[in-house]
Amino acid sequence: MFTSNEDTIVALATPPGEGAVSLIRISGGRSFEIIDKVFIGGKKISDCAPGTFHYGKIFNVAGEILDDVIVLKFKSPNSYTGEDSIEISTHGSQFIAKKIIEEILLNDARIAEPGEFTKRAFLNNKLDLAQAEAVADIISSRTDASLRGARNQLDGLLSKQVETFREMLITVSSMIELELDFAEEDLTFMPLSDVDVKLKSIVEEIDKLLATYSFGRVIRDGVNVAIVGKPNVGKSSLLNYILKESRAIVSEIPGTTRDVIREEVSIDGLLFRLFDTAGIRLTEDSIEIEGVLRSREAVKNADIILMVNDLLEGFSQELYNEIIDLNGGERVLVIANKSDLSIEQMNNADAAISAKTGEGIGYLFALIKDKALGQANFSENTAVVSNIRHYNALKKAKNCLLDARKSIGSNISGEFISVDIRNAELALGEIIGKVTTDDILNNIFSKFCIGK
Amino acid sequence: MFTSNEDTIVALATPPGEGAVSLIRISGGRSFEIIDKVFIGGKKISDCAPGTFHYGKIFNVAGEILDDVIVLKFKSPNSYTGEDSIEISTHGSQFIAKKIIEEILLNDARIAEPGEFTKRAFLNNKLDLAQAEAVADIISSRTDASLRGARNQLDGLLSKQVETFREMLITVSSMIELELDFAEEDLTFMPLSDVDVKLKSIVEEIDKLLATYSFGRVIRDGVNVAIVGKPNVGKSSLLNYILKESRAIVSEIPGTTRDVIREEVSIDGLLFRLFDTAGIRLTEDSIEIEGVLRSREAVKNADIILMVNDLLEGFSQELYNEIIDLNGGERVLVIANKSDLSIEQMNNADAAISAKTGEGIGYLFALIKDKALGQANFSENTAVVSNIRHYNALKKAKNCLLDARKSIGSNISGEFISVDIRNAELALGEIIGKVTTDDILNNIFSKFCIGK
Repeated sequence: MFTSNEDTIVALATPPGEGAVSLIRISGGRSFEIIDKVFIGGKKISDCAPGTFHYGKIFNVAGEILDDVIVLKFKSPNSYTGEDSIEISTHGSQFIAKKIIEEILLNDARIAEPGEFTKRAFLNNKLDLAQAEAVADIISSRTDASLRGARNQLDGLLSKQVETFREMLITVSSMIELELDFAEEDLTFMPLSDVDVKLKSIVEEIDKLLATYSFGRVIRDGVNVAIVGKPNVGKSSLLNYILKESRAIVSEIPGTTRDVIREEVSIDGLLFRLFDTAGIRLTEDSIEIEGVLRSREAVKNADIILMVNDLLEGFSQELYNEIIDLNGGERVLVIANKSDLSIEQMNNADAAISAKTGEGIGYLFALIKDKALGQANFSENTAVVSNIRHYNALKKAKNCLLDARKSIGSNISGEFISVDIRNAELALGEIIGKVTTDDILNNIFSKFCIGK
Repeated sequence: MFTSNEDTIVALATPPGEGAVSLIRISGGRSFEIIDKVFIGGKKISDCAPGTFHYGKIFNVAGEILDDVIVLKFKSPNSYTGEDSIEISTHGSQFIAKKIIEEILLNDARIAEPGEFTKRAFLNNKLDLAQAEAVADIISSRTDASLRGARNQLDGLLSKQVETFREMLITVSSMIELELDFAEEDLTFMPLSDVDVKLKSIVEEIDKLLATYSFGRVIRDGVNVAIVGKPNVGKSSLLNYILKESRAIVSEIPGTTRDVIREEVSIDGLLFRLFDTAGIRLTEDSIEIEGVLRSREAVKNADIILMVNDLLEGFSQELYNEIIDLNGGERVLVIANKSDLSIEQMNNADAAISAKTGEGIGYLFALIKDKALGQANFSENTAVVSNIRHYNALKKAKNCLLDARKSIGSNISGEFISVDIRNAELALGEIIGKVTTDDILNNIFSKFCIGK
């Protein structure tokens, strides 16, 4: 089922580009043998103690020096992959790294697939599957919240809870199966009413985990905010104010069309993706239509829609209706802008602001954050679901358990109850990788970068 | 004169971007103290043996885990800078690296200036100045030739030769000064005729080094090749053929104007920068004029000009004259293209080719390479000058020695001869950093990347 660990793999582990240092990773049974062929230092790496590093030079087959390097020796199982591993720290030129990797490849290693180092860590029980996935999340984290969420998962909080459920289900299904084995003796190991109580409590716990998902997704992937409004209501002023205020612009992505501008900012450690939409009304104008379609798409996919109105012009019921058509009403925040120019009130506004003076924008930020995070209030030590794969597996497990409870209620034979419970347990096992197919594994690890 | 080594400095050493691993460097007297404040592993780093690495976690002041890391301990003088140093290998997210660096900065370290780690290595006599400059060349090397040239310099081949000259000059000038001190006794320590012979031989040796410069520059910086020709003579076909043939395209730089296309390719380990020029004749057309100016600039700065002619149309004397006006005749290779369409000969052509079939292009490559490298035939173990700073210093030294020889010929007083020799020695000292001003140092190291 699993990739053979016989192969020794190699890859560049640092980002491509010029820097002071590049790092090359080797992992597998022949790591030490290979490094001894290309590296000359004070002594042979195979004779060095694990946990030590050594200065020396890498040579090519022609005897030319390729670079001065530092070599780190990791002895199985005390390495990231759990295998014998070598890390080579070279001068930070991609060209040199390429030359050194080519030299290592000549010695019967092969280039690692994306995520293969972490896959090996999983296969060697250094990490479970949810933890392995957290490694990718940690690497791509760009805000405090996403980093904290990924750490939570890497530290195994979700894994531990899922494992507890699994063990409880295994016990319950074993009891039922035992009863079936001793059916003729009419023994009862666990009354079905007790089984039902246990399943009910597990379903409740799974529900709690499922409820963390909208929060988990937001901290992992950020919040999509569409800014919508008629011309001249101050959409761009609001966007500019937010960008200036948050100071920490995570990235500026050049707009792919002139009609939807997308910016990423971090506010209070949370990633917000801001879409400044042009117009969402479908028109006949062929030049505008592409931009309108993209704006409508942005509204459809938004987690929050900031509908900006001009206090002087009043609330635009027409625009509001168009928004509701695209994305329902729950995600809309109605904003009355230009509070500096009028003492009027807008009755249905969630916030009155002045994008010019900044008045009310602090409160707006708080509103946005509340709306994005929902009522969730999780501590550092609560397991949080942030990955759609985990969410789906939990839902599957829950449905199996609901089926089992239905069968108990209908006095259906124990075999069927047991099968449902086993299926729930398998669904949970998928999260941490107790049950996985090659397809699932390949799908997960192929999303990693090379070298990880 | 030098930066105080009291400061402990920190920087990201790997290229920015996402990867499996990032590396953070700390150097200076408080490195171990600082790491003990942010890192928790099996034991305190200050208690660990130098040359060992350790797994653990970095915490922020709030007690939150920032990342799992590997920490390497380097004890002075056995480190890159010669100071106590720490390297931290983290998950490859720029965000995490930033958080960890911020944490280290809280503990009384400061962000390193560009090249400051290498500057400290120089100040602590781990490298001389020419070797330090070679480090930057190694990092930016993109071809076999440039890497080999930079290694040659890092390994100290130039430094050793320069140091030999310096020592000889110091001996000679000491003799002359000794004679001046004992002028009344009329003692002769070294007859001026002997001094002259010595200086003559050193000038000859310096000339040999100076002669390596065009070769050294080419292997370090690559060869600028301008492709010039009238419309439809096959310039683009030739460029495309070269790009396809060389396979190893080093980079594709999007043309900054639609008129000069620039591509970089590596042919036989040498970097060639190809400029496909549009036209070089000045016209009145205001739209074309900018492109024409850029094309003329490319021809002016070219190391080699490939003048492409159409065999069917014949040699264009007019265009040739324009090229000669811009860049003399020595660097031009006259090419007769479309040899597949005609059995005609072009008398003054250096090569007849067919950009369509590839006929003759192998020979053209050999011609280009010969013209680029000149008659130079240096072995791995010959010192090569590739840096304009070194070239200028050698020239200055040579001129001082010629002045000294002139003075000897004119029977001018020993004081003057001695001053010239001392000046030659100082000029040589600038190359390896025996005599440097803060300005020179800052100028050199500010060109490095941060973290090196």
